[in-house]
Amino acid sequence: MKENLLKSIVNCRAKHPERMNATFERIEEVLALLAENNLLNSFKTQTKTWGIKNKRSPLTKTQGEKIAEFLASHLSPRQIRKMSRLLHDAEISTREAIDLHEAFKIPVSQLEKDLVFVRGEGVWKTDTKGDKYLDMDSNYSATNLGMANPEIARGLFNQATQFISTKEDRVHIPRARFIKVIHKIMPKGLTHFFWQNSGGEAVDKAIKIAKAYTGQKGTIAFEGGFHGRTHGALAVTYNQKYRKPFLLHQEDWVHFVPYNDTNAVEKVLQSGQAKIVILELVQGEEAGIRLAEKSFVKKLRALCNQYKAVLICDEVQSGFGRTATKPGEWWACQTYGIAPDIMTIGKSFGGGYPVTAVVTSPEISRAMKPGYDGSTFGGNPMAMVAAFIAIRQMQEKDLTTNVVARNRQFVDGLKKMHSPLIQKIRSLGLMIGIDLPAKQDVQKFQDTLKQHGVHSSLSTEQTVRFLPPLIISENEVEFALKGIAGTLKKMAAENLALIV
Amino acid sequence: MKENLLKSIVNCRAKHPERMNATFERIEEVLALLAENNLLNSFKTQTKTWGIKNKRSPLTKTQGEKIAEFLASHLSPRQIRKMSRLLHDAEISTREAIDLHEAFKIPVSQLEKDLVFVRGEGVWKTDTKGDKYLDMDSNYSATNLGMANPEIARGLFNQATQFISTKEDRVHIPRARFIKVIHKIMPKGLTHFFWQNSGGEAVDKAIKIAKAYTGQKGTIAFEGGFHGRTHGALAVTYNQKYRKPFLLHQEDWVHFVPYNDTNAVEKVLQSGQAKIVILELVQGEEAGIRLAEKSFVKKLRALCNQYKAVLICDEVQSGFGRTATKPGEWWACQTYGIAPDIMTIGKSFGGGYPVTAVVTSPEISRAMKPGYDGSTFGGNPMAMVAAFIAIRQMQEKDLTTNVVARNRQFVDGLKKMHSPLIQKIRSLGLMIGIDLPAKQDVQKFQDTLKQHGVHSSLSTEQTVRFLPPLIISENEVEFALKGIAGTLKKMAAENLALIV
Repeated sequence: MKENLLKSIVNCRAKHPERMNATFERIEEVLALLAENNLLNSFKTQTKTWGIKNKRSPLTKTQGEKIAEFLASHLSPRQIRKMSRLLHDAEISTREAIDLHEAFKIPVSQLEKDLVFVRGEGVWKTDTKGDKYLDMDSNYSATNLGMANPEIARGLFNQATQFISTKEDRVHIPRARFIKVIHKIMPKGLTHFFWQNSGGEAVDKAIKIAKAYTGQKGTIAFEGGFHGRTHGALAVTYNQKYRKPFLLHQEDWVHFVPYNDTNAVEKVLQSGQAKIVILELVQGEEAGIRLAEKSFVKKLRALCNQYKAVLICDEVQSGFGRTATKPGEWWACQTYGIAPDIMTIGKSFGGGYPVTAVVTSPEISRAMKPGYDGSTFGGNPMAMVAAFIAIRQMQEKDLTTNVVARNRQFVDGLKKMHSPLIQKIRSLGLMIGIDLPAKQDVQKFQDTLKQHGVHSSLSTEQTVRFLPPLIISENEVEFALKGIAGTLKKMAAENLALIV
Repeated sequence: MKENLLKSIVNCRAKHPERMNATFERIEEVLALLAENNLLNSFKTQTKTWGIKNKRSPLTKTQGEKIAEFLASHLSPRQIRKMSRLLHDAEISTREAIDLHEAFKIPVSQLEKDLVFVRGEGVWKTDTKGDKYLDMDSNYSATNLGMANPEIARGLFNQATQFISTKEDRVHIPRARFIKVIHKIMPKGLTHFFWQNSGGEAVDKAIKIAKAYTGQKGTIAFEGGFHGRTHGALAVTYNQKYRKPFLLHQEDWVHFVPYNDTNAVEKVLQSGQAKIVILELVQGEEAGIRLAEKSFVKKLRALCNQYKAVLICDEVQSGFGRTATKPGEWWACQTYGIAPDIMTIGKSFGGGYPVTAVVTSPEISRAMKPGYDGSTFGGNPMAMVAAFIAIRQMQEKDLTTNVVARNRQFVDGLKKMHSPLIQKIRSLGLMIGIDLPAKQDVQKFQDTLKQHGVHSSLSTEQTVRFLPPLIISENEVEFALKGIAGTLKKMAAENLALIV
């Protein structure tokens, strides 16, 4: 036990090449969580004795040994166990991690520094304080199989030990294995792959392929749509605030039309100004959670056929069972009963490993010629190992069946709360949103929910989003519902208090 | 020994979740490599006895056991050892891997199917036949530390076991560790990071950041330059053949000027049509290997200062010591003695794990505001673990010192050959090119070189490229030189024969 404490302070590089020795500041932080004030004070007064000059430098071996000795003789066995665990999870203090992040990151987005997660198990996440949260975010649907999947870890290790990297245009065995399993879950007709590394990149390349096929660049995109951040993906993303700083708000080849409006689509197609249409069947990012209407989608497919336009479904967020309404529905396009000409897939594709793809028909694939594109990392052996294992697990665990059941449980549970604060429930599968009365309620809701041990997804406008890992169990959904009920109750009481 | 053979046929999923059971076809392939014809024939005649219906289906456990029994009783201990190894490396036949690749990949590039690599050790690669090659490609400079680096494998395993994925805007511990080591090797002034997944994506975002900072989109790029394949990166890539199929060949915001021509640059800057300049200090992709002139680069920096233009150095291929001419030169911009305003980095960044970044100054970083960008996978915990370990190794192994010595050895060795077939030697660090008399000589050269056990990099025009892992030793460069000498000799003899 004492040895474990020592190991968590003086790191064994052979076993943990990814860690350093603990810092004094981190030990202080953990001690403050676990022990009485007088112990913390007496610890702090030793700084000079131990020769600590910079509280944020990794301790030397000698310093570490002395400190471990001190702690072992002052803490209870339970405290030692807990301290070893917390130091193993993070040898750097939470404050330092936040400071470094703020000091050296280009501030492209709102920093989420409320919780610093260090460990996952199933659908649970533990932070640097050792507090556990139910993961209702799964990194925007990128970890449907949990944050620490043993098979994926083992497979990645084996592959990294064997052969870590090959470019997209080289044959390799992990990709052959992947191809042998992936077709079991693909929509009919979508057989050809171009592997990429991010969702935005996949959308960018999908548009390129559609341009090569149609020989035109005109593209119809939808109000409220979000497709990614590279120049190509951003140009078809609706929110002006994302495009304007980069002068991509007046691209003449992009035609935005209202979502669910076939007349507007037909007008552009008729004019001959566009032969490419890109859409999300569920708008997941910008507009909270907004579903396409079934009749709209059917008509859209018919219009694309009529005008020989290429229909791209961006299923980066909706794919791999996220939006299933029936067992076996791995893709939103199956729920809507249509087949796109091109589909982009990503997020949970590699169980957390960055891998995405453009998938299309043999005919459209032939529009691409050698030299038209290429990728150093796309579809590399590690990516394909992760995807192979993830896809096999998704099938074996029958995730779409679970999604259907958990959706029903979750939505029924929300309805039964009869809370006046719930304005609307939006859902398709395990992409679930709750509309609160106003935008300013969202932060309060999420903070209170965290106190109930539930971590929801980043939200826009007045919608709170939930994107749990698809392996979530009945008990865990129950836990989430209890947390939500408690949160709503607390908020209602406070609102009442305000009114009184 | 017999057990190893059985394990390589009937896979243990707990140990190797990334593999399947071997196929009959793969066993046939390996047998043909190792054994006499009559054994192969008697093996083939057993197909029915063993109930093999599809030679490409993974064998059942029973089939695998029977086949292992048969093989064990017919092969020598040496043959059994070799067979176990080959089946472990690939349980699918080379032919099937190639067929699946050809059948289901969007043909964006020339498929390289000559060798199917399955295992790496240091700078050596082994293919499905068990043949070993010296790696003079390192996946376009993406694996400077070799194809199977034990520390990187271990670190990735530990992190995947702990917490696999967090989006770019969340604080996490592996990133804090990374920040603590990376600044030791960054050029002065470049302190702020935006993490991405591919080189093209990093360039695309670098341009976005420059646009946000200058408030203009006009960009100067160079003839012969190659920056990647997303819409933004492609627009500034020179070769029309890459842009035209996607109608990106007439972008009004991009101004191409001749490489090494400051007058042309100044003319555009003077006109006010551009405030962004992007260049590679060594053009590595399109034009073979072409160096910028020192005086040009100095003047370019001065011009950017004078006209308040942002200078982006794309160091995706040149960075991390690849082009060092002095110990400690981790970046080509250091060799040229300038500081760019924005730099893109990638390739070997994560020792083979897909991670890239845009790096810039505090001032330019402030042009980005929350909401301007974001990334699901950029700078995720796995990526940061890989980068942390890779960067520490690069420093400990003193790779830039090795690059300087190996460059001298390689170039001297080439010169001493006095071959009339070598028209020109191009080099900066371990980015080395040999110009042959004509484009059609390149394929022949590379094929012959392969027979000497040396695998060179994909080449354009008449230049053969060499991009070995930076850990390459003196003996290994010697091995490469011997192979090159033998290749040139053979080609010269054949040319002579043709003339006679």
